[in-house]
Amino acid sequence: MQDLQQQLAFIVEMDRLKAVYRQTTVKDDKGRFENSAEHSWHIAVMAHVFAPMIAEPVDIHRACLMLLLHDIVEIDAGDTFAFASAADIASKADKESEAADRLFGLLPDSQASDFRTLWQEYEDAESADARFAKAMDCLLPLIQNMNNEGGSWRRHQVSRSKVVARNKYLEHSAPKLWEYALEQIDIALDKGWLQEG
Amino acid sequence: MQDLQQQLAFIVEMDRLKAVYRQTTVKDDKGRFENSAEHSWHIAVMAHVFAPMIAEPVDIHRACLMLLLHDIVEIDAGDTFAFASAADIASKADKESEAADRLFGLLPDSQASDFRTLWQEYEDAESADARFAKAMDCLLPLIQNMNNEGGSWRRHQVSRSKVVARNKYLEHSAPKLWEYALEQIDIALDKGWLQEG
Ligand SMILES: [Ca+2]
Repeated sequence: MQDLQQQLAFIVEMDRLKAVYRQTTVKDDKGRFENSAEHSWHIAVMAHVFAPMIAEPVDIHRACLMLLLHDIVEIDAGDTFAFASAADIASKADKESEAADRLFGLLPDSQASDFRTLWQEYEDAESADARFAKAMDCLLPLIQNMNNEGGSWRRHQVSRSKVVARNKYLEHSAPKLWEYALEQIDIALDKGWLQEG
Repeated sequence: MQDLQQQLAFIVEMDRLKAVYRQTTVKDDKGRFENSAEHSWHIAVMAHVFAPMIAEPVDIHRACLMLLLHDIVEIDAGDTFAFASAADIASKADKESEAADRLFGLLPDSQASDFRTLWQEYEDAESADARFAKAMDCLLPLIQNMNNEGGSWRRHQVSRSKVVARNKYLEHSAPKLWEYALEQIDIALDKGWLQEG
């Protein structure tokens, strides 16, 4: 029963990710801000849709579980905007690592360790599974911003080169999607949704 | 490029699940109603947490994908409360089947067919994978209602036997969780959160 109580505590704690809001908006829900729980669902679905585009060996199940878990640290650390200041991004890694210790630590030991390790692999972005997962997490906001007339890029005056850098995981992971992302970024620049530079 | 355009159309359409609200509430977000996208994320995470409890052979990846996709039909058909009237539940199956045709039909043919088939398997609830997935979808609202002083059960005066029937998939799929669910249902009855009968 001890394991079950720990698992239940983790599951109940996960509810709080529904209260962490991001910079992206939901067009079909009155333009309200998107939360990290529904975002995590969306990228997990997207990973399955784009699985046939992957150009290197990827275990889609592992990538999917990374995507489901990767944002839970925001329950403690909050969401850091992808194009936040260098100082904010620097303090993010430590806060998120502490959050991962606490949150995965709610689970029974072996599960805590497995999930924490998978979360770290995602953060490190060095394996093919993690690269593909990261690519999905970065590509969705691009698709959403293109559908929201520039969305968070425009509100925060983000520059072209930052969006290119952010989507770099696509280059080796899914070259066709990388090509698509670059085209979209050019369109956004033309429309004034992204800044030069 | 044709496939990519279809996949993008599907992914953009999925955004609308974030605007479909359920009867469950999010305690940590001012008690607002929960939407079906964040619910789908939560049960997919939960399926991985409870995977070690499964008592029959289950492919957790297939079960997870079922959970990620099972509610998307609500984009067209809306959410039907689990304990709605018999008439509402009867009209639900047809509406959802049409919705599945339209929504999965946005995808390239072979993907449309694979996802539609997986969705149907979930609905039929006859395979071990589908039973486990269904069990997760039904158990989470129980956990949430127990944490919300009866939540949607209490607001809609739901009876004990309906909640027992709804959680029946647990019995063979994860007997320890079934035992837990029955205990919680008894507690809810004692507290007056569920009605006798
Ligand atoms: Ca449902």
